[in-house]
Order: sequence, then C-alpha cells, then structure tokens
Amino acid sequence: MFLLPAAMELSELIETCKVDNVLLSRPFVQPVKGTLCVSSHHLLLSSRAGDKEELWLLIRNIDAIEKSVQNLSGLQSIKFVNEENGDRSAGSSGIITIKCKDLCVMSLEIPGMEECLNIAKSLEALSSLESTSHMYPFFYRPMQLNLQEGWDLFTPEEQFTKLSTHTDNWRLSYVNKDFAVCPTYPDAVIVHRSIDDAALKTIAAFRQGGRFPVFSYYHKKTGMVIMRSSQPLTGANGKRCKEDEHFLAAVLQPDKKGYIIDTRSTQAAHQAKVKGGGFESKTNYHNWKRLHRSVERGRVLQESLVKLVDACNDQSNSIDRWLSKLEASKWLTHVKTVLTTACLAAQCIEREEASVLIHGSEGRDTTLQLTSLAQIILDPDCRTIGGFQALIEREWLQAGHPFQLRCATSAYSHAKLKQEAPIFLIFLDCCWQLSCQFPCSFQFNEHFLITLFEHAYASCFGTFLCNNEKERFTLNVKEQTISIWARINSPSERKQYVNPLYERNSLAIWPSVAPQSLQLWQGLFLRWIRSPEHRNEAWEQINHIMEHCKRKANPTSTEPSVIKEGSARE
Amino acid sequence: MFLLPAAMELSELIETCKVDNVLLSRPFVQPVKGTLCVSSHHLLLSSRAGDKEELWLLIRNIDAIEKSVQNLSGLQSIKFVNEENGDRSAGSSGIITIKCKDLCVMSLEIPGMEECLNIAKSLEALSSLESTSHMYPFFYRPMQLNLQEGWDLFTPEEQFTKLSTHTDNWRLSYVNKDFAVCPTYPDAVIVHRSIDDAALKTIAAFRQGGRFPVFSYYHKKTGMVIMRSSQPLTGANGKRCKEDEHFLAAVLQPDKKGYIIDTRSTQAAHQAKVKGGGFESKTNYHNWKRLHRSVERGRVLQESLVKLVDACNDQSNSIDRWLSKLEASKWLTHVKTVLTTACLAAQCIEREEASVLIHGSEGRDTTLQLTSLAQIILDPDCRTIGGFQALIEREWLQAGHPFQLRCATSAYSHAKLKQEAPIFLIFLDCCWQLSCQFPCSFQFNEHFLITLFEHAYASCFGTFLCNNEKERFTLNVKEQTISIWARINSPSERKQYVNPLYERNSLAIWPSVAPQSLQLWQGLFLRWIRSPEHRNEAWEQINHIMEHCKRKANPTSTEPSVIKEGSARE
Repeated sequence: MFLLPAAMELSELIETCKVDNVLLSRPFVQPVKGTLCVSSHHLLLSSRAGDKEELWLLIRNIDAIEKSVQNLSGLQSIKFVNEENGDRSAGSSGIITIKCKDLCVMSLEIPGMEECLNIAKSLEALSSLESTSHMYPFFYRPMQLNLQEGWDLFTPEEQFTKLSTHTDNWRLSYVNKDFAVCPTYPDAVIVHRSIDDAALKTIAAFRQGGRFPVFSYYHKKTGMVIMRSSQPLTGANGKRCKEDEHFLAAVLQPDKKGYIIDTRSTQAAHQAKVKGGGFESKTNYHNWKRLHRSVERGRVLQESLVKLVDACNDQSNSIDRWLSKLEASKWLTHVKTVLTTACLAAQCIEREEASVLIHGSEGRDTTLQLTSLAQIILDPDCRTIGGFQALIEREWLQAGHPFQLRCATSAYSHAKLKQEAPIFLIFLDCCWQLSCQFPCSFQFNEHFLITLFEHAYASCFGTFLCNNEKERFTLNVKEQTISIWARINSPSERKQYVNPLYERNSLAIWPSVAPQSLQLWQGLFLRWIRSPEHRNEAWEQINHIMEHCKRKANPTSTEPSVIKEGSARE
Repeated sequence: MFLLPAAMELSELIETCKVDNVLLSRPFVQPVKGTLCVSSHHLLLSSRAGDKEELWLLIRNIDAIEKSVQNLSGLQSIKFVNEENGDRSAGSSGIITIKCKDLCVMSLEIPGMEECLNIAKSLEALSSLESTSHMYPFFYRPMQLNLQEGWDLFTPEEQFTKLSTHTDNWRLSYVNKDFAVCPTYPDAVIVHRSIDDAALKTIAAFRQGGRFPVFSYYHKKTGMVIMRSSQPLTGANGKRCKEDEHFLAAVLQPDKKGYIIDTRSTQAAHQAKVKGGGFESKTNYHNWKRLHRSVERGRVLQESLVKLVDACNDQSNSIDRWLSKLEASKWLTHVKTVLTTACLAAQCIEREEASVLIHGSEGRDTTLQLTSLAQIILDPDCRTIGGFQALIEREWLQAGHPFQLRCATSAYSHAKLKQEAPIFLIFLDCCWQLSCQFPCSFQFNEHFLITLFEHAYASCFGTFLCNNEKERFTLNVKEQTISIWARINSPSERKQYVNPLYERNSLAIWPSVAPQSLQLWQGLFLRWIRSPEHRNEAWEQINHIMEHCKRKANPTSTEPSVIKEGSARE
C-alpha cells in the first residue's frame, strides 16, 4: 500500500512514462505492438494504426503485477527474486503480467529491463494508492454527464414517502444528523413511530457501532417488515436495554410473532458475549424467535474467491481436477448458504406472516446480503433496472457496506489480507442464480450484474468509493465525482442492460437451492477464458428479433426496416 | 428377462388387471387416487374425474420395480426380502416404486398386499419381455399416421445420388444383398469405385464381423472423406489382406496423407491381436497415420450413467457431496473424450485436408459416435431437423448400432449388465454440449434430443427396434410398425422441436472442450428433479415473441393479432 505524502503529485510516482515497441497480449484478441504510456490513472497502449488506443486500462483495476525476464537467447522465463538483481542487459526484454480486479489477465513484453522495471514500479505504486481523494473518480469529467445527476435518485426521504402510502407506523428520523449517533448510517433513517430520538440514542449505545434497528422493507401483501441492525452489546453479564426491547416489541402487532435471523452460529453468538457482543435473549424479547444461520464472511470468503478463480484459470485438461478444485473452493456452498438464508427470511415475511430482524455482528456484510436478497425474492420492483439501483443504494451504499475495504483487492492480489471479502460479489452471484431460475422475471441481464461487479472493484465513478455516507460526505464525493447511475440510466447505455425476455412477475420467486440447481456463474468467472462470442450470439439473435418486431409495429420509424411492409403482406 | 413361450398370450402374464383406490405419486404433480389397469403394453391410472387418464405408461419404459409395505399402524416401510414372506394382512397396503428408463421415478400405493404383489409381478414380466415381435410398436396403429411413412426417407441410394453430384470416386454396392457378407450392414453400401464386389468379400473376411471399410461422409470444402469399419483381423502373426490395403490406398489422392483414428489405446489395440484382432500397420498401409484415442465403452459407461443418475437423485443438501459424486461418476469425462476425439477427426478433414478411417474393435459403438459427431461439427446440413434424422438413420440405425442390446436397460435396472451401454446417450449429450456453445447453429432444440433419448429406450415406434437392418428385415419392422420420423415430421409435432434462434451457420463449429466449458445436461438428467416450469418460461417467451412477430408480418392471417395494425401505426 502506498501512502502519498500530502505535497506529492501522482505524476511523481511515474518513473518511465513512455516505452515504444511494447507487445500486448490479452484474451481473445491478437497480440499487438505499440507505444505504452503510463498516466496518473491509466495505462495506455497505442499501435497508432487506428484512431483508438488498443489498451485504456484504469490503473486502479490492477490487482497484481508479476515480472519476468525473457532473454533473447531463449524463451526461458524466470521470476525475479529481487528486482535489483535482475538481468538488465540490453539484449533482454521484460514481461509484465497484469492481473486485473475484473479477473482479466494480460501481459506486456517490454524491450529493455530498465524500462520494464520502471513501468512495473510505477504501476505498483499507482494501483495501490490509499488516498481516496487522489482516485480517478475525482478527475473524471465526461462531456455527456454532469456532477449532480444520479446522486439524488434514491433518498431515505423518497423511500419514506412511498412507505407512508401503506402504513403510518414508521417515521423518518434525523437523529443521525452529521453522523453523530452512528458513523456508518446515513443522516436519515426510518424507525418505528413509537420510538423517539432520545431512545434511539440509548439503543445506539447498546448496539455495536451504534447500528440500532432500522426499517429495511415493507411487504404490502402481508404488512410485515424486514429490519436490520448490529448485535446487541449484552456482554457476558447479559446487559439489557429497555428501549431496545421496547422498539422490537412495538414492531409486532398483537398476537404476532417475529423472527430474529442471526447470521452467526449459536456457538459464535455465545462466544461474542465474551467480547462484549451478544444476542437477544428469549426472556427479554417476547414473541421474537431467534434463528441462527451461520453465513460465512471475511477471510474465508476471500480465500474461496481466490481458489475459485485459480480453478477457473487452470489450463489442465481434466474434468476430475476441475470438479475437485471447484468443490474445494467452496464458492457454490457459500452462494447456497446465502440464498437459502435469504429464502428463510422471505418465507417468514410471506408465508409465516411474521416480521424479521436480521443481524450478525456488525450488520454491514452478511446482514445486507440477506435483507437485499429477501427483497429481490419478494418484491418485483427490485427486479427492475431502476428498482435494483434503488436497492443497491438503500441496502448497500447508504446502509454502510464498507465497499472500499471489502473490494480493495480481488482474486489475484498478493497483498496481505486485511478487510477484503467478496460479500457484494456473492450477493451478485445469488442474483444471477435467481435470474437463471427465473429468466423472464428480471428486467436486467447478466451484463448489468457484471458491470456492477467491475465498478465495485475499480471505477471512474464515485458511487462505490468510501465505506459509508459519512466518508462520502467528508470527501465531497457527491459533489466532486459522477454517479454510476447517471451513466447507466442514459438511454444509449441503459438498453444494453435490458433483458429482452422480461415480463413483470408480481409473485415472489422461490428459487431451488438444491446443489444440482446452483451453477457456476460462467459469464463472470469464465469471461476471460471462454470466448463470449457464441454465448452472446443467442442474446443478439433475440434482440435482433425484438428490434425487427418493434420496427414492424412502428413502420413510420426512420430506422430502416428489414422486411418492407408491402412485401410482408404478400 | 422373460422368454415368452410361443403359444402364450401377453395377457396371460397379467395376474391382476384392475385395482381401485390406487394412489399415484409422481414428480411435479399432485398425488392422485384412481383405478389402476394393467394392459399388455400399458399401465393406466384414471381418477375418472376428467376425460383423460392420469397415467398412460408404456410398460416397456419400466426399468426397475421396487416393492415395499406400508402398515396402517405406521409409516414404517420395509423392502421385501422374499415376496412370498411379505405381510399379506388385509390392513396393509403395498407400495410399488416404478423407475422408468426415461429416468422418471413414480410410486403407486395399492390397497391390499395380494393385489400389490400381483401387479408388481405382472409389470416385471411384461417389462422384461425379450421377444421383439410382441413389443408395442407392432400393435400401435394411430389414426393420423400410416405404416409406410418415414421408412424410405433416408436410403443409401439417396445418399449416393447426393454424393454423385460432387465426386465419381465412389459407387453403390449391393454386395451385401440379403445381408450375406456383413450381417450388421444394410444391403446397400457406398465403397470406393476401384474396389469390386469380389474384393469387398475378401476384405469382409479380413475385418471383424465382416465390417469392411465403407464411405460415411464427404466434405465438400476439402474433398476429403470419413470412412468407418471394424478392426482388421491381423492376429498375432500380422496377417495381411492385399485388397484391404488396396482399398485404403485407392482412397488417398497422390501425395495425400490419411489418418486412421483407432478408438482404442495403443496397448488395447496390441492386446486385441492375441484374440485375432489387430490394427493397420505402418508398413502395409503407406501414407496412413494411425492415431490411438482411448474412448470408453461397455460396462464402464453403463456404470458411469448409473452413478450419475444416482448423484442427480441424491436429496442431500451439500454442494460438496454433489460435486464429488458428479466427479466420481466420470460422465462428463466420457463426454469430453468423445467430443475431443470427434474434433480430432473433424480437424483432420477440414484443417489437415486428410481423409479419415475410424474404427475400434467392432465398429458399431464408439466408431459411430465419432463419425456422426464429426459430421455435426463439419456439416451444417446435419444441424437441421431433417439432416439430423438422416444422420441418425445413416450413422446409427443402418450402420448397425445394436440399439436393442445397448438400450435394454437404463440407469435403474437391477438386471445383470450384459450388453447395455449408453453409447447413444453420450452422443446426444455431446450434441447438447455443442448446441449450448452454438445456440443459434442448430435448427432443433433440447426437447428434440430428449425425445430421441426416450424413444431409443422405450417407444411405440419401430425405428429403434432391433440391432441392425437384417433383424429389422426379418421381423418386417418397416412394414409392421410406424417410423418415428413420420410422427416427428408431422407439422403439429415438428414445431415443438424448432429452435427459434436458429440461423444457418455454414461454418464448421469448433467447440471448447476445456473442463470448464462442459456442463451437466440438466434438461435431461434433472428433468424429474427440478421443475421445468421456469426453465421453459424463457423459451415460451421467445416463441411468443416470434409468433407475435409472424402475425404482424402476415396480418391477413386468420389468427387473432395481439396489437392491431392500426393502433400499432399511431
């Protein structure tokens, strides 16, 4: 990790900014030779053959860099033990392998060892920059988009206005103004009407990180709600908080039961008490039934991702080996657990007609996977392009999922694991599994989910910067960067995310979570290994048919018609 | 296996022909109670609630029958050790589990043990009948279809006429008239012009089972051909046959190389010599390069199918267990091997511009998998509904694949393995893998492949009866049964097999055979486990769009239009 001294310019990190005759090799395209340029935020390669650069890579997208040397005398290629001891003779060229956060692997063959080492050093420094305000979104100023657009699309106020048309049990509270009560919550939150702001402050002190229970989702059909929070700080002595108990009691209608879904195993929840954490006891929280479901988080998930991507990149030709590595990665097991637990939450709401509170420890990771997936299962609005954006805003960005910490590295980085975990990617994978089982129920396609994955890990937009709204506010992210929703909702961009088979399905979608029903997300994990050409062919054909159909329905359109009206009538 | 005495009627095998109050449970439908009837060829159940029978099962489709008893005192259910010792008390009911060749599993709860045992005994006898002429196709007489239709669609004569427009190097020989030279070949075969019938007879004596090399496929682009045969009977002493050598030499153009693809490992081919078999030696077959590729056959494949289906039916909830069982079944490994070897053959033809001879030992199993798949890869005609039928006729039925022996039992049967092997199913699976990778290049859909699988194992049509044309001739199959092609090509039937995304692709389709690229054929192996509802939804939506599009293109059609022309123009 590179900490930039305050006065230092990014350009000072660039040791060599231009090298000629560099050979770029990438998946699915012919290797190309050209001039390589390193700018503060991009790595560029141009063969000067056409108008376009052959490579325009956001340096932030680089997950790992490997260097090797290729002597002209032969193809022998060795890894540097210490780069200062590398063979710097003029006759040899260096190879830099760039492994990207979006899982793409490419290589650059650079004539001259000096240049190679300088380029590698520059890329390492620029790609591991920790200072958020030096990141590209603060410098990205496209012609077509303006800074305001997209940032105010999905506010707690708007969510509350919608909720008010169905129930007046809830109120909008500004108790967290200036992020004073909970640093990871937005300034406005929806809470139960019977709880005043003073009580909320008391509850915040009783919940880890100040994350008191807040409203997440109202199910029109049953009138039940999903709430989320962090764990209560009961500690080993079973500390209580009357206001917290009152909040939860107030949510339940008379004679109704509620469920607390704790994303830790019973054992882990008990162990948490020793460190001051805990869970809601039966005796103090009447009518709330606690269900423990162990959902994996942290390092285990990150290692699973690393193993999965390693399996996918394995060039060996054996099915046995592939299937064992896939199994050993446990990725699909994690996907299954999250999807199963989300179904449980949704079932409580729709079938048991009971409200649900979800939390684990901090309530910023597995909790959000479950609240957001349960909504996708239950609510057709969340399966639209706009509704999914609103969901990401509400349940991930404003809810304080620490994107910058969790998505700091992807599957290739050699950096020591700290806070990284593909929590959000598991969520996207679950959405993909749902869309496979209900191919007509989602307005968006796979490409939309892949785009969100890419931007969560490296982006020219500010949306996924920082770890919570407070940090975004402090850095003026919403004033000084562009929102990804502004780009995605522009008409030319939006159409590439549309599922042509979409037909609104007002029912809940209950997926099969049998092992046989869950599949590897090939479109994401094999996207740089298997050429997408023929997989995309089918979608292109469907879109072509739809276009043709549309033109026929509107023959006065200026677009050329494939079959003329006259001839079609013959 | 039940050998029917000549004078015995099928109906004499039926011990109890009717039982009331039988409860039928099947995948995806509500259990239903009704009257069960056993006829000579069908098992029927009717609740008399509607016009239709709830069950109309071809008894030939039954692969295994398991009996258990359910006492009214409890749900305890035990397997009979010896049916005569079963609890025949009036208060208990028996359960018959029927496992079908099409992989469906259903159960019948029959009141009264006596009746249950009688039904089971009848079904066991009727389903394991060995006499072909007593099978249902000889009794099936639907109103809409006549006996002649479909049988003469794909003849060697027609194939030869087509070939003659491209080359005159080949001739149609009737040396096998009355199946005198090779019992597993049709009466007419295409052979090289330079070889007369006398020489063919000599060659037949030198090849196992009389299967001398015959023409299989002509590749217009390169003028190269695929031939197939059985192994040469060189034996341990390296016996030679001048006519055989001459045949192969004559096929090669001057200065051209040919490839012999032997579907056995080098070791297996050498071992075959001891038993009188062998292979073409380099010295005697100039310019022919032999490539050994071990393709699995026989018992190993059958066991693989059994393990795969067992894994698919496993109700356990663990991804690890599912993936290990899938791996242990080796099914995908076998699919991969066949597909890879077929690609090799196709590459010889298209890229190396060399002709190919394919054989293993008998030349009736793995040989046919490869010749047919190579044609699908190379020739767009084989990817149409009609062309695929022609391919099945030429390369499987007329080529003497022993369907009756290989498809006698499916994945559930407890009968001792004899000649069963899912050679044809592996071929269909490879076709499915190709259609997944090239979703627009096939005129037919998955349902077409599944239908062929079903009929190969149990059918009301005569097409897949017997093991070769000689047997079909002897039993008058083509005069006394209906051809499946007659049904499939009827307009109402045909449309359900059409891939709406089809667009003729005149190129060869080269699949990826990387382990990550091959998938479990869920549509077949999980068809009774995962409800097809939502998987089919997408296809229905596409078809709906296409229909809508077609109606708009032809507004004078009598079918109602969803959007009226007038309103669409607004």
